[in-house]
Amino acid sequence: MRSIDAVLDQVDANLAASVDKFVRFLAFPSVSSQLDGKEGIAACARWLRSELEGLGLEARIVRTSGHPVVMGTSRTANGNLRVLLYGHYDVQPAEPLDAWATPPFEPAFRDEDGLRRIYARGASDSKSQVWSFIEALRAWKETEGAIPVDVTVLLEGEEETGSPSLPAFVDAYRDELACDVAYISDSDMWSPTRPAITTRLKGLLHEKITIVAPNRDLHSGQFGNVAVNPLRVLTKVLASIHDEQGQVTIDGFYDGVMPLPKVLREQWAALSLDEALAGVSVTGGPDEAGYGTIESMWGRPAIDFNGIVGGNTGPGERSVLPLSASARLSFRLVGEQKPEHIRAIFRNFVESRLPPGCRVEFEGGGGNAAVSVNEKSPYLVATGRALDAEWPERTLIKGTGGTVPLVRLLTDRLGVDCIVTGFILPDDAIHGPNEHYDVERLRKGTRSWVRILSELGQEQSC
Amino acid sequence: MRSIDAVLDQVDANLAASVDKFVRFLAFPSVSSQLDGKEGIAACARWLRSELEGLGLEARIVRTSGHPVVMGTSRTANGNLRVLLYGHYDVQPAEPLDAWATPPFEPAFRDEDGLRRIYARGASDSKSQVWSFIEALRAWKETEGAIPVDVTVLLEGEEETGSPSLPAFVDAYRDELACDVAYISDSDMWSPTRPAITTRLKGLLHEKITIVAPNRDLHSGQFGNVAVNPLRVLTKVLASIHDEQGQVTIDGFYDGVMPLPKVLREQWAALSLDEALAGVSVTGGPDEAGYGTIESMWGRPAIDFNGIVGGNTGPGERSVLPLSASARLSFRLVGEQKPEHIRAIFRNFVESRLPPGCRVEFEGGGGNAAVSVNEKSPYLVATGRALDAEWPERTLIKGTGGTVPLVRLLTDRLGVDCIVTGFILPDDAIHGPNEHYDVERLRKGTRSWVRILSELGQEQSC
Repeated sequence: MRSIDAVLDQVDANLAASVDKFVRFLAFPSVSSQLDGKEGIAACARWLRSELEGLGLEARIVRTSGHPVVMGTSRTANGNLRVLLYGHYDVQPAEPLDAWATPPFEPAFRDEDGLRRIYARGASDSKSQVWSFIEALRAWKETEGAIPVDVTVLLEGEEETGSPSLPAFVDAYRDELACDVAYISDSDMWSPTRPAITTRLKGLLHEKITIVAPNRDLHSGQFGNVAVNPLRVLTKVLASIHDEQGQVTIDGFYDGVMPLPKVLREQWAALSLDEALAGVSVTGGPDEAGYGTIESMWGRPAIDFNGIVGGNTGPGERSVLPLSASARLSFRLVGEQKPEHIRAIFRNFVESRLPPGCRVEFEGGGGNAAVSVNEKSPYLVATGRALDAEWPERTLIKGTGGTVPLVRLLTDRLGVDCIVTGFILPDDAIHGPNEHYDVERLRKGTRSWVRILSELGQEQSC
Repeated sequence: MRSIDAVLDQVDANLAASVDKFVRFLAFPSVSSQLDGKEGIAACARWLRSELEGLGLEARIVRTSGHPVVMGTSRTANGNLRVLLYGHYDVQPAEPLDAWATPPFEPAFRDEDGLRRIYARGASDSKSQVWSFIEALRAWKETEGAIPVDVTVLLEGEEETGSPSLPAFVDAYRDELACDVAYISDSDMWSPTRPAITTRLKGLLHEKITIVAPNRDLHSGQFGNVAVNPLRVLTKVLASIHDEQGQVTIDGFYDGVMPLPKVLREQWAALSLDEALAGVSVTGGPDEAGYGTIESMWGRPAIDFNGIVGGNTGPGERSVLPLSASARLSFRLVGEQKPEHIRAIFRNFVESRLPPGCRVEFEGGGGNAAVSVNEKSPYLVATGRALDAEWPERTLIKGTGGTVPLVRLLTDRLGVDCIVTGFILPDDAIHGPNEHYDVERLRKGTRSWVRILSELGQEQSC
């Protein structure tokens, strides 16, 4: 057993230096979605490569069809457990710039609410997460001369644009990415005092439907009572998707939806709604009978309408029956719901409701099934132990209504469990102006990774 | 009795000169909705005033808060019947100009389908209509030295922008506009061989509704199953407005809707749908049980959806529950349906369907009730006789799904019957590129007015 206390002390002792470097990391304008972000991305990637080299890793920048991946690999040849650590170094655009109290790429410190906060784009999402595990590796290296496991660090440069190049990259580098367990560190805590591991991630598919009438735009005064109005057809179709109990009426939609394990259900039912909702009102919202609010958010499938448009959307009045009307929907899947099956039964459902003469155009492809990480995985249990030791409250095994396609990708292509954990908080203003993080969370996040690596080191020696 | 045959012959003899002047009338770019149309409007108004003076009328240009009205009045002091003749000299914009085979304000002749067609903006809507009654007045004047009735010619310059100044004008000039019967000449024939008088005009009101959720934009993955989605609320509300039989479900909506007189109902049921629909498909359209297609179009009230918008309307996918969603609706009224009552019960209907926490914003005001001209009015009967004499087929007493607020205005403020007739055809491409009319229709339209004036002259002598 290694002396974990010395490593944890080293994290604390090194904090000022760690924060200095973190500030340099934050100063790179590594905006992946903007053309002029390319230079910031490239400079940030070079800087990260040299940081990984400084940890004694074999480090390189791998070109993709989009922004580069930075990889760092330790090779002890000790037959160690190999752990993949994923993070992303690209950030969201910072606009509108005038909404920031200080410039987004000139990190600024403010003491607020008893915390020393750092304001910058990427301060929380996700440079703090990357920096926490890098500093944990450094602490092990500096204190013990070695990391307790072998690691493969994978730092992506286009997470904020939907990871378009990542699948091809993972396929091409499958051998080098082979590992025993993968960590995705880009997620949130339950509260400032309670860490979390996210084991239930919903699947996702998008569909756009466009109802097209057999006529051109018509005068609604003349033809409103007799010609098909795509707006009327569209609203009837959309309104028939959910019944009054909030249940989806599409035959077969719930195929493959499993009941939640009792232990999770009970844990979730005991959670405070205030934390889960973070100020969002659910008054008058859908309320699927028999399911609690948090179970609905994390464990039940959904069909959402995300956009609708047709006919006169201008400021004035116009008597028109438009040629067409369209809507965008997203489907959040759980359990074994299959995206292609869901897409097929949805399209059938729409087509069966079309009046004669109308046609429908569908737009949408691909999609991801849900991922559930086995809550009994020894790596997950070990991770929970490590987090429990660092934070005041017990680690929450939680779900998310969101979708992280990467988890599906690594689970499927590398054949390993993905453990999703991180230290982001809802108040960090990620994606918005004045994004921030705090020094204490950086310290405790780093210490958490020190503990996780220690636990995994023991795991392999079992 | 005056010698009508001589007057009709004069119309025919004078046709070439009439067409020459019509071409000059068409060349004025009197576009009311464009700032640079102002000059064309002003020049056109001056030209019309001099034409009316040429007929021996007291003519003048009356300024309004918008474009001017041109008025011409005959004063015989013979105690004649006074007939108001309404037309409009402004036109729709001609854009897109490159869709025109010849420039819209350089009238061009083409011999097609056995007709001599004139292509120009306004050729049909509505300069041909104005020119037809002006030439009829001229033919009477030149042949008999007098028009068989007293006339008040009222030529509007902003019909195509919704007649914003007309109500104030009518109020201000009510005494001078006093008459025994008013003709609105801006409407269509049933077919090239069958003239029509429109006696049933629907009322109209517009409403915009915006459903507003208690939250800001939310991530639909996180909150789709629990927070109100205004798109879902909006589609449910809109879908509940019509039942499966196409009937409006709003309680009280049909108050004041009278059954159609049997004679009209039978006449309309006998009409060819091909003419009524002009190529528009009604396959799969609403089909209110118990009512024929034409009765539905002309005689039944309607609620139409004219536009809808909310959430993501861009080209990409976005997982959003938007803050709000809105729709525009129009209501076509018949019989004694009252706009203010309809607005009130509609707003109630929407509010009663809102989930708690949501609110709705309404936008809309005013509106017009329907107008029915008494089909037994002696002036209407006389007009029918005149048209029957000129055209191969019997005059159709018809309705329209459209709304002509002017008819309501003159009916209410002047207290007279408004007879709506004209010689526009659906194929004239009004409001579109390559608008046209034909010389033969100009001739027969003028002759129709000669006959109407003759009939009215006899009417008063009864």
